[in-house]
Amino acid sequence: MRPLFALISLAALATPAMAQTDALSDETAMQARTLMENALESDVAYDTIRDLTTRIGPRLAGSEAEARARDWAVDHLKSLGFKNVRVEPFDMPFWSRVSEHAEIVSPFPQPLAITALGNSVATPEGGVTGEIVRFETMNDLAAAPMDDSLKGKIVFVDEDMVRTQDGSSYGVAVAKRSGAANEAAKRGAVAAIIKSVGTDTFRRPHTGTMRYIDGGTKVPTAALAWPDAEQLTRALAYGPVTVRLDISVLTKDSVESGNVIAEIPGKTDELVVIGGHLDSWDLGTGAVDDGAGIGIVTGAGKVILDLKKKPERTIRIVYFGAEEVGLLGAFAYAKAHATELDKHVVGAESDFGAGRIYQLRSRFGESQLDKAAAMQRVLEPLGIALADNEGTGGPDMTPLRTAGVPVVSLSQNGWDYFDLHHTSDDTFDKIDPDDIAQNVAAYAAFAWMAANMEGSFRDAPAAD
Amino acid sequence: MRPLFALISLAALATPAMAQTDALSDETAMQARTLMENALESDVAYDTIRDLTTRIGPRLAGSEAEARARDWAVDHLKSLGFKNVRVEPFDMPFWSRVSEHAEIVSPFPQPLAITALGNSVATPEGGVTGEIVRFETMNDLAAAPMDDSLKGKIVFVDEDMVRTQDGSSYGVAVAKRSGAANEAAKRGAVAAIIKSVGTDTFRRPHTGTMRYIDGGTKVPTAALAWPDAEQLTRALAYGPVTVRLDISVLTKDSVESGNVIAEIPGKTDELVVIGGHLDSWDLGTGAVDDGAGIGIVTGAGKVILDLKKKPERTIRIVYFGAEEVGLLGAFAYAKAHATELDKHVVGAESDFGAGRIYQLRSRFGESQLDKAAAMQRVLEPLGIALADNEGTGGPDMTPLRTAGVPVVSLSQNGWDYFDLHHTSDDTFDKIDPDDIAQNVAAYAAFAWMAANMEGSFRDAPAAD
Repeated sequence: MRPLFALISLAALATPAMAQTDALSDETAMQARTLMENALESDVAYDTIRDLTTRIGPRLAGSEAEARARDWAVDHLKSLGFKNVRVEPFDMPFWSRVSEHAEIVSPFPQPLAITALGNSVATPEGGVTGEIVRFETMNDLAAAPMDDSLKGKIVFVDEDMVRTQDGSSYGVAVAKRSGAANEAAKRGAVAAIIKSVGTDTFRRPHTGTMRYIDGGTKVPTAALAWPDAEQLTRALAYGPVTVRLDISVLTKDSVESGNVIAEIPGKTDELVVIGGHLDSWDLGTGAVDDGAGIGIVTGAGKVILDLKKKPERTIRIVYFGAEEVGLLGAFAYAKAHATELDKHVVGAESDFGAGRIYQLRSRFGESQLDKAAAMQRVLEPLGIALADNEGTGGPDMTPLRTAGVPVVSLSQNGWDYFDLHHTSDDTFDKIDPDDIAQNVAAYAAFAWMAANMEGSFRDAPAAD
Repeated sequence: MRPLFALISLAALATPAMAQTDALSDETAMQARTLMENALESDVAYDTIRDLTTRIGPRLAGSEAEARARDWAVDHLKSLGFKNVRVEPFDMPFWSRVSEHAEIVSPFPQPLAITALGNSVATPEGGVTGEIVRFETMNDLAAAPMDDSLKGKIVFVDEDMVRTQDGSSYGVAVAKRSGAANEAAKRGAVAAIIKSVGTDTFRRPHTGTMRYIDGGTKVPTAALAWPDAEQLTRALAYGPVTVRLDISVLTKDSVESGNVIAEIPGKTDELVVIGGHLDSWDLGTGAVDDGAGIGIVTGAGKVILDLKKKPERTIRIVYFGAEEVGLLGAFAYAKAHATELDKHVVGAESDFGAGRIYQLRSRFGESQLDKAAAMQRVLEPLGIALADNEGTGGPDMTPLRTAGVPVVSLSQNGWDYFDLHHTSDDTFDKIDPDDIAQNVAAYAAFAWMAANMEGSFRDAPAAD
């Protein structure tokens, strides 16, 4: 039992909703409110995050640890009472770091804190050494002339990331994660390093996946911690600086990963999907990214199970595998379930940390927006506003969304998310149990309403 | 030129002091105020810290980098116009880490973030593996029975450090840094790990020196980052946990270190000493510990030089070597200057980070406390209060203080000091130039007053 529900008034939860859509019955709305109350008293989500991050710890996509996490997940979901618990395996290429080191060789010898970016090739034996050429932004590098001015050099993209609540700066910031190496290689550079994609100023580099352009030269690439990027820039103020980068990696053509699926069977074969991703980067224990999401959807499912009422639609919980390396589990899921995508009435993934939800963004048919509004009215006592109809549903909803499945984004406060994101400091101690409980309440109510509302979330097909 | 002097009113500095002691002339007090004004406009301290931490970076006691720092220091001090700039070398034993790794072996395999403690012996080839026995406090371990209950085990002391402004919790906290290994070894344990001596909750272990007791068994010892100590405790809640620790180190019987000395010659051979320490731990670049102190006393000396008035007493700036490994430079200084200790009228070291000074603590003869009060009245516009007569003068004043030299502690706000202390995150970006300028103002005024006040800071010798 949770003793304190900061900022959330249970009295407010008991207030009857006003102006329901016809699709949301008073009974369903009242049940959703009960789920919210129960969620705020449940420790299942918090305990799930603790159990996963303690017993498994880091769980890189395709690794033996990710396989242990799937075994853990099956046991955990069964023990909580979910039905149809199973793993849907898929194959994937494997990449992991083995060792990584960087240092200023001259004029001021000293180590630099770096981490290799996912998919980076290794450096040659003994590392690669080159003079640093600094670009203040990724755009500056992309605009550099296609001549030999970078031949044999190491490119350094020193672009800062802007702090935003909704993560809207990530798209800009992450462009350098692949772009630095690709644009550097086109111009003859031997390696590329970037200031970490992150908003903190501590000495913890942020990893993350990158992709080489097809047919291009592959040069090794890594992220500097923020203080090290600042240090390198300070050193460059004195004159030319030479850096040595030494990265070794392990790759395999094909390993097994998998999605873990569990269900609360409904009265029909229509599906509401809620999920998170089971894999994490290797540097931390994946608490915020995405142990939180795993915990939240599991805790939400558990309070629904405990309601002991069969929903109209089946509620499916998916722990996606191999999200970090390119949504591989999401694409495998969409492929495995290609014939039943029309049965997926709505989906939502929790994968933006462990902060409170502050808004609901739908992506429904324009004719169905009254349903988003009705959901938000029930969620409003949790501090959740109605936003636009441009929700993404979360990264692992991408293949479903692009196939036309309606989605909901329950947007979390991401103000601090990129402080820890993809670093060694993504650990369980960063999780606030009250914030998690608010998320669980929102997901439980959302899933229950989605499973019991009448009608579709899609526009009716146009008449031929 | 510094554009902004937060919290400090120059108008206040110009207010005439009240109730001077006879020892502090109005002229000297007015000159001290001018120095404070000039210090608040000077960038020398901040630039000194930047230059040292950028050009040298980490500078472990006795290392080649510390030697480069001495060369830098001589050039730097000469270029600023100090006189009698020289190195006073001394020999010392050398220790450095080579590699360090720890992991939970069972039941939940995963890496742990650790750093070896200074002077730790290496583990045997392949590391040492043992079951963890956790003690909540150092006292609990010290009180454990002297039987075989720890034989073959790895001791884990999970004690938190209390946050204080004045660093008064450090003495308690640091007891485990040597105590864990010594008490563990007495009871047959094969290694000892501690929760870092630090107040942050990030994944950056804190190093620091430890000492084996004479004639005792030496077991390897390391500090866990705070999140890793928490993780280990969480894992232990499930049952027995086995950890592997792998540390390799490099030691040498004798290497050269040295103190760097510079002077502002006075009219007499009496000495006022202000200092900081030049060495740092290897993990960061030693900005807060103790680049700040080096910068502060250098900046203070520079504004005194720029006053172009010869002080009565000589003001001596000392950059102590090898502080971190046991005040080796301080003891070497006291030994080299043993015959002139009576000429040392007062000393002060800046070695508690980069925060603002909030109080002056003297250690003067009881008959001389009016001089401390007079100094404080001049410093008061900087926000500096008069405290007690129990000042230590800073770590490197220990040998002088114990030999009877009067000292002053200009106490810095250390609220955040142990967040970064002895970690990889002790880097230049953590330095606030306005806070440094306030320190420079206080040290310049203090040193000038001490050099020009009439009479001694000691009690008159008792008549035989």
